[in-house]
Amino acid sequence: MAIRTATEQDQEPIWALLEPMIRRGESYALPRNMSRVQALEFWSAPGHEIFVFEESGVILGTYFLRANQGGGGSHVANCGYVTAEAAQGRGIARAMCLHSLERAKERAFRAMYFNFVVSTNERAVKLWLSLGFEIVGRLPGAFQHPGNGFVDALVMHKRLRE
Amino acid sequence: MAIRTATEQDQEPIWALLEPMIRRGESYALPRNMSRVQALEFWSAPGHEIFVFEESGVILGTYFLRANQGGGGSHVANCGYVTAEAAQGRGIARAMCLHSLERAKERAFRAMYFNFVVSTNERAVKLWLSLGFEIVGRLPGAFQHPGNGFVDALVMHKRLRE
Repeated sequence: MAIRTATEQDQEPIWALLEPMIRRGESYALPRNMSRVQALEFWSAPGHEIFVFEESGVILGTYFLRANQGGGGSHVANCGYVTAEAAQGRGIARAMCLHSLERAKERAFRAMYFNFVVSTNERAVKLWLSLGFEIVGRLPGAFQHPGNGFVDALVMHKRLRE
Repeated sequence: MAIRTATEQDQEPIWALLEPMIRRGESYALPRNMSRVQALEFWSAPGHEIFVFEESGVILGTYFLRANQGGGGSHVANCGYVTAEAAQGRGIARAMCLHSLERAKERAFRAMYFNFVVSTNERAVKLWLSLGFEIVGRLPGAFQHPGNGFVDALVMHKRLRE
């Protein structure tokens, strides 16, 4: 089991992770009909550092790390994580988040922000809270969930140094 | 005096508004050394509707309107406004914001969000509050202000229909 930098060869397994997440439309504010090309462009946008979680040669998760904003906001990191549906509940998201926090510290980011955590994504909210993130914003009705209608999105924050 | 859709001919006056704002680095999280091309690409990104505030043939302000997120977040509008330094305090930002709220309602957006209002930009914060925006998030130390160091950024929200 290892978390490593993604390579060109990982595009297919990364798309295999992204596609069901995008089609469900429950956790990321992305068009549910996004194509493979659009999705990979989004995930691997300029300035994104991409990692994969690999176990016995199988990619079970991926995340990106980037500066959350430019200019005066570039000391803050932001990440997005996706875990294979079949591998959920096994601590892969937690392992990726811990890895990303270390990587963000290495890169001298002062904090990490999640801008838009869908409040009904309870597993994620609970996980981020358990890793020391705090809820610093609640955006009323900011996300239209396919099953639950308009639900809040959360802004979460963790300081990386004093 | 009129607020109208920007045309190709407005690129030069729009850059004349953006450049001092970007070089000061006090209100938008953009690289302070951004080039003209980069700045106009940012302002006129795909999906942005661009307006200008014109008085006696002179462009004194500009704003963009866009969906704040894709997919499940596309019912929420987002705007950015810039007023000419020499014309500040004359109600131009207020007029543009009121215009954008009407335009957002026309386009059936359910709410407007500002994701990253620099807290030391007191004139803007006061203006948005006076127009019915509420502070729904405070991002500690999220902006490095050239004069004031690390300051908070605010997330502000206004509902456009019940």
